[in-house]
Amino acid sequence: MNVSMSANLVSSSDVNGTEVFGIDGGKIGSIDHLMIDKHSGKVAYAVMGFGGFLGMGEDHYPVPWDKLRYDTSVDGFMTDIVEDEVKAAPTATENWSADREWEQRLHEHCHAKRYWI
Amino acid sequence: MNVSMSANLVSSSDVNGTEVFGIDGGKIGSIDHLMIDKHSGKVAYAVMGFGGFLGMGEDHYPVPWDKLRYDTSVDGFMTDIVEDEVKAAPTATENWSADREWEQRLHEHCHAKRYWI
Repeated sequence: MNVSMSANLVSSSDVNGTEVFGIDGGKIGSIDHLMIDKHSGKVAYAVMGFGGFLGMGEDHYPVPWDKLRYDTSVDGFMTDIVEDEVKAAPTATENWSADREWEQRLHEHCHAKRYWI
Repeated sequence: MNVSMSANLVSSSDVNGTEVFGIDGGKIGSIDHLMIDKHSGKVAYAVMGFGGFLGMGEDHYPVPWDKLRYDTSVDGFMTDIVEDEVKAAPTATENWSADREWEQRLHEHCHAKRYWI
């Protein structure tokens, strides 16, 4: 995403497409879009696409923003979530973004800090 | 952007392209992308495109996120910033997003709450 270290701000258009790497250095997926909490204005999730081939058959999964750290050395996000953990995470309901109970389970699964508290 | 009132979250991809209306109900511009504060994970600005025709000659201007309220009745953002105010705002330096002094002047100009405090 070519972001200088000095900048405090990052563009949503630069985040989209940025790769996500696990603790073992392997690529897990890449960011498709962000989900923003209307109340606080905070980024709640980066929705990651993973699996699939050339964009086909790709699954999307919301990663709590708190679980991502930008690392300039790999020009991508690092996370301590591993791909198996994503696969084992609570199945996203169609309406997950309005389902606080589901969000709660996801955050517990990922050991992520809840953005709504 | 077709967002239900019940949802706490909004997608960055739905925000992009959303129209911005002034207090008089007139359209000022539409959102091009968001700028996110890396430290807090908060949306700092919605960068609005205005003027121009069919995307040509369009100017971009960062609107403090605090100055936008989503209004379902118009399916867009309302702001109390008027177009003249945008035009009279401090000229954006090329490096505005890393220029805290410029950001300070912009927030004073717009009477916006500073996101970094």
